[in-house]
Amino acid sequence: MVDDNIILTGFMGTGKTTTGRLLAARLGREFVDTDDLIVARDGRAIADIFNEDGETYFRELEARAAADLAERRGLVIATGGRLMLDPANVTALGETGPVFCLTAEPDVIVARVAAAGDARPLLVGDDPERRVGQLLRRRAAAYARFRPVPTGGRTAAEVAAGIAALLDDGLRETISVGHPGGAYDVIVGENLLGRFLEMAGIDGPAAIITDSHVGPLHGGAIRRADGSALPILTMTAGESHKTLDTVRELYDGLLAAGIDRDGTVVALGGGVTGDVAGFVAATYLRGIDFALCPTTLLAMVDSSIGGKTGVDLPQGKNLVGAFKQPRIVLADIATLATLPAAEFTSGLAEVAKHGLIADPLLWQRLMMEEWYFDPRLLAADRLLRSDLQSLVARAVEVKRRIVEEDPFEKGRRATLNLGHTFGHAIEQVSGYAIRHGEAVAMGIVAATHLSAALGECSPGLPRLVEMVLARLGLPIHIPPSLDPAALFAAMGSDKKRKDGRLRFVLIHDIGDVFIRGDVPAGMVLAALESVIMTNDE
Amino acid sequence: MVDDNIILTGFMGTGKTTTGRLLAARLGREFVDTDDLIVARDGRAIADIFNEDGETYFRELEARAAADLAERRGLVIATGGRLMLDPANVTALGETGPVFCLTAEPDVIVARVAAAGDARPLLVGDDPERRVGQLLRRRAAAYARFRPVPTGGRTAAEVAAGIAALLDDGLRETISVGHPGGAYDVIVGENLLGRFLEMAGIDGPAAIITDSHVGPLHGGAIRRADGSALPILTMTAGESHKTLDTVRELYDGLLAAGIDRDGTVVALGGGVTGDVAGFVAATYLRGIDFALCPTTLLAMVDSSIGGKTGVDLPQGKNLVGAFKQPRIVLADIATLATLPAAEFTSGLAEVAKHGLIADPLLWQRLMMEEWYFDPRLLAADRLLRSDLQSLVARAVEVKRRIVEEDPFEKGRRATLNLGHTFGHAIEQVSGYAIRHGEAVAMGIVAATHLSAALGECSPGLPRLVEMVLARLGLPIHIPPSLDPAALFAAMGSDKKRKDGRLRFVLIHDIGDVFIRGDVPAGMVLAALESVIMTNDE
Repeated sequence: MVDDNIILTGFMGTGKTTTGRLLAARLGREFVDTDDLIVARDGRAIADIFNEDGETYFRELEARAAADLAERRGLVIATGGRLMLDPANVTALGETGPVFCLTAEPDVIVARVAAAGDARPLLVGDDPERRVGQLLRRRAAAYARFRPVPTGGRTAAEVAAGIAALLDDGLRETISVGHPGGAYDVIVGENLLGRFLEMAGIDGPAAIITDSHVGPLHGGAIRRADGSALPILTMTAGESHKTLDTVRELYDGLLAAGIDRDGTVVALGGGVTGDVAGFVAATYLRGIDFALCPTTLLAMVDSSIGGKTGVDLPQGKNLVGAFKQPRIVLADIATLATLPAAEFTSGLAEVAKHGLIADPLLWQRLMMEEWYFDPRLLAADRLLRSDLQSLVARAVEVKRRIVEEDPFEKGRRATLNLGHTFGHAIEQVSGYAIRHGEAVAMGIVAATHLSAALGECSPGLPRLVEMVLARLGLPIHIPPSLDPAALFAAMGSDKKRKDGRLRFVLIHDIGDVFIRGDVPAGMVLAALESVIMTNDE
Repeated sequence: MVDDNIILTGFMGTGKTTTGRLLAARLGREFVDTDDLIVARDGRAIADIFNEDGETYFRELEARAAADLAERRGLVIATGGRLMLDPANVTALGETGPVFCLTAEPDVIVARVAAAGDARPLLVGDDPERRVGQLLRRRAAAYARFRPVPTGGRTAAEVAAGIAALLDDGLRETISVGHPGGAYDVIVGENLLGRFLEMAGIDGPAAIITDSHVGPLHGGAIRRADGSALPILTMTAGESHKTLDTVRELYDGLLAAGIDRDGTVVALGGGVTGDVAGFVAATYLRGIDFALCPTTLLAMVDSSIGGKTGVDLPQGKNLVGAFKQPRIVLADIATLATLPAAEFTSGLAEVAKHGLIADPLLWQRLMMEEWYFDPRLLAADRLLRSDLQSLVARAVEVKRRIVEEDPFEKGRRATLNLGHTFGHAIEQVSGYAIRHGEAVAMGIVAATHLSAALGECSPGLPRLVEMVLARLGLPIHIPPSLDPAALFAAMGSDKKRKDGRLRFVLIHDIGDVFIRGDVPAGMVLAALESVIMTNDE
């Protein structure tokens, strides 16, 4: 962290330069403003560069400045307002340290720019506030990648102090999930596993439940304050082990480890591990404490939040389970570096789903032309972690809002099943050869086609959804080996059936989904068929 | 019911005669006052009979009147204030119909007697209220057997109307158990199984879970309003089937019966059935509705209330489970008629425990010289059902108070484990050859001996507790075949161990128990040894 750069970006008038200078002084670092750097190198004022050589040339100078600064460390950098809209600059600078985006409301921005006596074109015209608002909305998706720092009503010194405090705090983000039985924190951060027990206040008897993939990678990282390790109970990795037999073995393991009613189960792993360990914690000695360290993207943004736990029966998935709220969730994004790329991509399906359900801005981030979550970047350890952390936190936030509204899945929460009625059938008929997230992606496409066929959304929406999912590396077609009739039959055994009729989560528009319970069987079958890959594709 | 008698008893001045006359008129029945009957037969006023032939002779006349009236039906009978203190009269009249005990506070009684212009000895002296209070307390245990009808501040007509309403309502008693997640009713009554689904408002998909003993006896009684039956899932009776394997079979049964998330599990049977069915309901599809029809005394007064469910592991009892509140509990005491006498007696151990923990009056009822819950009476179908109903309701009320204070067994509720730390060890070491209630009775004796040895209660208390439990037909000695060292070791594996030290529920006095966590091992062993049957006994 000490060797990282600290990058401040944001719209004109948010105080990037003043704040950056104060922050640098506070931290004893060198401060660089990219505009100043460009002016110093070029010898001309920025307005002159624009006037004489045009904007494109200026952007080139910016890119060169960004590339040069990316070679250095230990700086506080304030960027031009548009510099970090360019994905290449984000990749270059973002890898050198955390990026903060200073924010302010349009009226604050206009007032600050006017007070500075600037004669910028922004202030020319009838309604500068409205124009600033438009620009902010246009940039919102790009800025949303960075950690937001509100500046309205605060002095630059206060903002700098706030950023310093965030840095001290390891830059983690905490989302508090309310629940009738209390509340718990979801902490999204990096390299926090070692401090987890302390952060969670777990000092009584405890055991880690993990799987045969994750245990060897991260099991040893979780330690008590005195450095001692916890007993580790390892289940065989994979959905096929999400069974009552595994549960029974884990009961035996907890008993053998002497875990009593004051004990805690720490689940370390993906969705399967969390579901199984949560069910064990919910039922061992009639329920003991439970903490979650999800290590897959899917588990971080979806299955860790909301208290659903369970195991499969031969008759179907999640037919046995309980609602069990964790005491704390720690999404340590450093663990994603060890995740197979295909698993990462699979998790992106749930992120996309959250965007589609309730967060158009999150969806927009996924739509951006340059895609930063490319699994290849991940594999090469070149993924922008700050970017990833904010993406995870944002997706968690969507889930939080929805589960808080409906803690026991009686209503609104069912919208989280967008794509899942199709998806579960696809998983099942494929014999679980298709990953959950991949099946969900196919299911989302099918649900969108069904929505369009029912006249519930614009005819162009399915194509848009397909484009974005495909760009994420997700499959958008059901393999032709899966029989539509078999898929349709499998949907009938899904527990989301109510009163014997098939219910679907459908979509009006990005961020606007709803439930319809009377969908004709023929339309469902047609939607399935339209998503099955044909030979000419 | 139409052919039953209706008997009113209670202290002088509670309005037995006036109310009885009004009730008889209301119901179109003949009214008989036992005092009037005696006077009519003898030809003398009651005061004269007392003066000339003494009280003993009068009591003989009363007994004869009671025996004669017990041959008749369809009457409303008002008794002399002391007539129903004689157990023989209770047996005779109580079998012919429900007994109501009219009650009033001492000041109300004194005012009513004075207003009636009676020159009874009661009103002579300095402080008649105090004397009436003393008499009421002395009779409290005997009167507590009957259904209480408060009369203070109400006219006789209002009291008569209230009794008529109780009769219309099938005389059932309803105890509402509060809980953080809501509240549920425990209904104690007779011959109500057939109306259960209607009373409980269960009209969606539902299945009965019962065992191979109870199912054939009562499974067919539970029907929908249209007379149709529910699917019945039958587990093999017995604690040895309280396992995860049984749970798995029941999941399969519910799936095969098409029970979905709107479904309800109706548990019909004893404690094992309720525990298993409750756990199934808590975990099937992450939890569906659950209703309880306990058919054993133990289940009615203990395991049905408080939401504890669970199954055993080979390592110990109830190591897996969940808290699952029922939607409703129906204790139909008619089902106790088919209960083996030894099971009934076993259930009395928990009734006695509730008295010891928190209800001295309930305990007093069990101490009364003539014991009405003699299993031989039950076997001969001569048990007083009104008596039994009020006993069950009173024991339920104790449990209600305690679980409401502590819904998740974090504190006070642990006092319900009086005798259970010893008892569980006794069951376990006996290979479950000893019934739960029998083991609890032995455990209560051991806990009382331990309390006396620690100086926590009077030295005479163990003997008193032994006497009462023995009179109930419960064992008070541990068989010599059980090794004290083995019992002591078994206690260590009980989940009530906290921080590695043995915790015990101990007793100061009847109705006054507490928890002590630092009991020396040597004292525990000594208590065990003092309760083990020796050869010279």
